[in-house]
Amino acid sequence: MLSFNLLATDGAARAGTLHTAHGDVPTPTFMAVGTAGTVKAMTADAVRATGANIVLGNTYHLMLRPTAERVARLGGLHKMMDWPVPILTDSGGFQIMSLAKLRKLDEQGVTFRSHIDGSAHQLTPERSMEIQHLLDATITMVLDECTKFPATRDEAAISMRLSTRWAKRSRAAFVARPGYGQFGIMQGSVYADLRRESAEALIEHNFEGYAIGGLAVGEGQAMMFEMLDISAPMLPANKPRYLMGVGTPDDLLGSVARGVDMFDCVMPTRAGRTARAFTSQGVFNLRNARFIDDGTPLDPNCACLCCTRHSRAYLHHLFRAQEILGPMLLTTHNLTYYQNLMQGARQAILAGTYATYCATTRARWAAGDG
Amino acid sequence: MLSFNLLATDGAARAGTLHTAHGDVPTPTFMAVGTAGTVKAMTADAVRATGANIVLGNTYHLMLRPTAERVARLGGLHKMMDWPVPILTDSGGFQIMSLAKLRKLDEQGVTFRSHIDGSAHQLTPERSMEIQHLLDATITMVLDECTKFPATRDEAAISMRLSTRWAKRSRAAFVARPGYGQFGIMQGSVYADLRRESAEALIEHNFEGYAIGGLAVGEGQAMMFEMLDISAPMLPANKPRYLMGVGTPDDLLGSVARGVDMFDCVMPTRAGRTARAFTSQGVFNLRNARFIDDGTPLDPNCACLCCTRHSRAYLHHLFRAQEILGPMLLTTHNLTYYQNLMQGARQAILAGTYATYCATTRARWAAGDG
Repeated sequence: MLSFNLLATDGAARAGTLHTAHGDVPTPTFMAVGTAGTVKAMTADAVRATGANIVLGNTYHLMLRPTAERVARLGGLHKMMDWPVPILTDSGGFQIMSLAKLRKLDEQGVTFRSHIDGSAHQLTPERSMEIQHLLDATITMVLDECTKFPATRDEAAISMRLSTRWAKRSRAAFVARPGYGQFGIMQGSVYADLRRESAEALIEHNFEGYAIGGLAVGEGQAMMFEMLDISAPMLPANKPRYLMGVGTPDDLLGSVARGVDMFDCVMPTRAGRTARAFTSQGVFNLRNARFIDDGTPLDPNCACLCCTRHSRAYLHHLFRAQEILGPMLLTTHNLTYYQNLMQGARQAILAGTYATYCATTRARWAAGDG
Repeated sequence: MLSFNLLATDGAARAGTLHTAHGDVPTPTFMAVGTAGTVKAMTADAVRATGANIVLGNTYHLMLRPTAERVARLGGLHKMMDWPVPILTDSGGFQIMSLAKLRKLDEQGVTFRSHIDGSAHQLTPERSMEIQHLLDATITMVLDECTKFPATRDEAAISMRLSTRWAKRSRAAFVARPGYGQFGIMQGSVYADLRRESAEALIEHNFEGYAIGGLAVGEGQAMMFEMLDISAPMLPANKPRYLMGVGTPDDLLGSVARGVDMFDCVMPTRAGRTARAFTSQGVFNLRNARFIDDGTPLDPNCACLCCTRHSRAYLHHLFRAQEILGPMLLTTHNLTYYQNLMQGARQAILAGTYATYCATTRARWAAGDG
């Protein structure tokens, strides 16, 4: 099974290394999202060049197209994507929430109507594990129900307990292999006792890591941080902790401070396709007319292809002209920025200076012209 | 001024080297089209990696957006695009034909209504030269009227003579600099005597190269080849010859055989965005269901990123899922294929085996499953 070495702590913040069959992942780490077997607008080499050591693949999307069996016949997702390093796959649990109108839920599992052609696809814990196995995921996630927000205490409890039963079935269905692993997913919405009940039940199965699910679903950053403050300490210190679907650079800094090791989010890639840039000087919208004659680099503190070779004015032009190179360059930059942010966090934690790192980074955002 | 060394001939086919302020260009050569300051779906590094030594920029599109003055303020098109090697810019003459409904033509020049915002933009020979100078084009094209097809003899004569007068004004407005050059453009539609009149008038100005214009506009390959057979020998042997807007791989082989040295066309890039692949085994449409489980490389004889790292099934998946990586990978391949085709032609001409090269290449296309 994969292993995790916790190298240092700085307050609640942690620096470690995940050792897997497909290579090591220094943590904290951000996972770019490769929904349909590609990080959108990026070659695999370009993703690697951002500093990424792991990406996320999506069970729901891949089971519909090209199908898990087809990916397996092509040698697995690593080979198909030309991504030999680690891949974590989600389980389909997020789509139980996000595609609520296209699915039916019962004890056995969930049946989706495909958003592509309307065909029916059942996803049980066992089938989700089978799909992730066929994809050859380095890290497999249990099938859970991502609880909607807001949820009453009763709704949250019913949903969390279903996820708990599914986690047990998911663990039983997981095929253990050297260097591979499976993560449980804590639910419980914003209710501390439900979060504790969820964590304790999951820990019994001795997963290789634990995700904190059901956050970043509309509760806001303050509530999310409050739930992390109580949730992270409920999880084993010697296992990686993964906050699903988060978030902005500021969310990442605050979550690392609360003991989170791993993140995924479409934000840097989606923003990159819509002209929004995350930089050391804050957030920019490159469509803004103020950039039309701006010959300076997007982020003078960034060594990526976008920032070292091109100007803000060129990026502005590319987005105005709807050229594909705009999303390509800005996705490259945003992912590089996220990777640099996490690498800087790791170095600061190892040096015992994480609080200063966060303060300095936030001061630069505030002082910048973004 | 830029210079051209003719190194070898094989029948009418020629191998040479263009020496410019921005580097050498071995010929025959194919120029990828970078209409709006980017070869669509490609980083500049990726274009270089296809083997390209020169690209084409577009006066009409760049004058509208971001404007030639803005490109100049950003340091010129080479710097803006991160493309330090040669750039040829067209003059806007092609748009006189292709945007016939959006322009007014008179002796002085042409006034376009912008296809973007309807604003009026006058393009005279003098203004076209000024724009190309502002863009810092390595090779500047004279302003011509690309004669529509079909055209009566009278229409073709009137149009060609206007282009001849504009060529004279373009030459007078051109700012000569070491390693830069200007090409005249032969017109005359499908009328041999008009082509001769055009060529003779252009040669008086001693351009650094000569384009053959007004072909590949609907006359068909047989007529195009017939016109090349008579047109190419009308042009000086010691200057490069550029066939504008051509074409398919077969068009290129046949045109090189008739004495053409340079080409440009949107075909490999546009095809790449619409799932069409040019390969050593013929043309494929990657959307075709026959590729859904095809784990083999697109072209086993190609060393590009697309062919060495991915399968036809993955490309099929990317186009079905409308992922940007599909156009990125297939444009990479198509441009690599065009570059390899021209490099192979050059080697064959130098070896005196060009006829065999063409026969072998065409036999592979015919025997392939494309």
